[in-house]
Amino acid sequence: MDCFYFFRTFVAIIQQNMNSKELFDKIRDKRSFLCVGLDSEFGKIPEFLKKEQNPVFEFNKRIIDATAPYTVAYKPNLAFYEAYGVSGWINLRMTVDYLRANYPDMFLIADAKRGDIGNTSKMYAKAFFDTIGFDAITLSPYMGEDSIKPFIGYKDKWAIILALTSNQGASDFQYTEDRYSGYSLFEKVINKSKNWGNVDNIMYVVGATRAEMLKDVRRIVPDHFLLIPGVGAQGGSLAETAQYGMNDQCGLLVNSSRAIIFADSTENFAEIAAQKALEMQQEMEKLLNSKIPEFKNSKIES
Amino acid sequence: MDCFYFFRTFVAIIQQNMNSKELFDKIRDKRSFLCVGLDSEFGKIPEFLKKEQNPVFEFNKRIIDATAPYTVAYKPNLAFYEAYGVSGWINLRMTVDYLRANYPDMFLIADAKRGDIGNTSKMYAKAFFDTIGFDAITLSPYMGEDSIKPFIGYKDKWAIILALTSNQGASDFQYTEDRYSGYSLFEKVINKSKNWGNVDNIMYVVGATRAEMLKDVRRIVPDHFLLIPGVGAQGGSLAETAQYGMNDQCGLLVNSSRAIIFADSTENFAEIAAQKALEMQQEMEKLLNSKIPEFKNSKIES
Repeated sequence: MDCFYFFRTFVAIIQQNMNSKELFDKIRDKRSFLCVGLDSEFGKIPEFLKKEQNPVFEFNKRIIDATAPYTVAYKPNLAFYEAYGVSGWINLRMTVDYLRANYPDMFLIADAKRGDIGNTSKMYAKAFFDTIGFDAITLSPYMGEDSIKPFIGYKDKWAIILALTSNQGASDFQYTEDRYSGYSLFEKVINKSKNWGNVDNIMYVVGATRAEMLKDVRRIVPDHFLLIPGVGAQGGSLAETAQYGMNDQCGLLVNSSRAIIFADSTENFAEIAAQKALEMQQEMEKLLNSKIPEFKNSKIES
Repeated sequence: MDCFYFFRTFVAIIQQNMNSKELFDKIRDKRSFLCVGLDSEFGKIPEFLKKEQNPVFEFNKRIIDATAPYTVAYKPNLAFYEAYGVSGWINLRMTVDYLRANYPDMFLIADAKRGDIGNTSKMYAKAFFDTIGFDAITLSPYMGEDSIKPFIGYKDKWAIILALTSNQGASDFQYTEDRYSGYSLFEKVINKSKNWGNVDNIMYVVGATRAEMLKDVRRIVPDHFLLIPGVGAQGGSLAETAQYGMNDQCGLLVNSSRAIIFADSTENFAEIAAQKALEMQQEMEKLLNSKIPEFKNSKIES
């Protein structure tokens, strides 16, 4: 089909897909449950990179190399690539190819918030799992089961369903209290959709800005992984997230985007990003040590 | 930025953006409220086109030329382009450029079902309104006001918000009955979001497969345009849609995708697509004549 075809086929063969146990192993190895969000807005990257042929890719490459020791996942946010049309997609694809070639054990999330009727969702699944090669994609649940199922049907791939988001508008509809079940909409979403797959192919998005609600989420899905945005620029607390959301297999991926990748805009941006990621990893290691006995043992062994 | 830049800037200057009155004028001129959905899946286009350099664009071009006399809008479905990555985006962009250059008065909808936190939605708005040049985009309301507002903020552009969709999964969450207001979730979505903009920048998606619910929708938004999918392949009825949903400015855009564009897979596909579009236009003209007095008058004048 195109010049990347053979390279991508090769990468697809060697890449490791992860179930929840393997994801926890990764967290134990790195002593981190950090996901770095690649919300790599062209307008915000350091000036000296803007003259490069693929500036966003060059930015991502340096951020990845600097932060990889402290993170288990990367999450490109599709909007920041689509905003630049065809060239945006080229930069996205180069980023994913670079990650696959150099960090094959990273968990790669497409932050895309898709969801459509069955035949259309099937094409989105093809786009993000086959064509680009992500491990997981964020999805909006509004259109229900047949909008989510095509993503769960992929072996070793994950659907990450929006439950309670980190933004102000979350309160417009996500707390709507169901007259019959008494559940809030976000609880109903979790309770219903957990039966469409299992702990190895479904995660939920729960914003760190609403950490206390993690107790309610954990009552419904004690064992599922949760993807937590909103720590950092949006004001959420890592300690509270762990307090209410961590389970004995960690069960959390905490995302930080702007607070890491745009911490500095000089030629030292990658070094500063590494420092910020390291600080988060260190805080995460403390939380893992204090909350997961097994984790402490693994520390002694290593 | 790239080779299309000056052409696109020129096109952006000459293109006509539409408010609801202008959209109704278009409907009156064409005696049609048909939107053709360009769900142009590569695997389904006629074999003889697959050897072209940009087969999906070549398919769309022929479909557009054949159906343009009978339609007021086109709606590319993003999934079918993203599934082919960079080359898919090139075909999408060529399609929109072709429409803008040859049919500048068509209303162009990105069927993208996006929606994210404010700073991210802002980038999606840039992607679809500035970079590609659509007039409107479909949006998922799950994340609330700040996920929708960046789209409404664009002059002469439209946010088309999912209310009650045409698929089976619509019943999973969209009918959730709010304990306090008594509204179903889809009614609550409409009732709340109608205050975020007005009849010139917000439409709602209501599936033709649930035509009887259009009565409830019309109680809340008598004057807004509605985008109606689900006629044709999904089994919805055009007559019922008009019966329950049409207002005195028409207020409807009815989409048909597969039933038109994939009605035939031979070298005659465009001719057959034109026939199918003409049949829909003729049925639409009858419905307009029977329901809108002003429309009959305009017929006499023309």
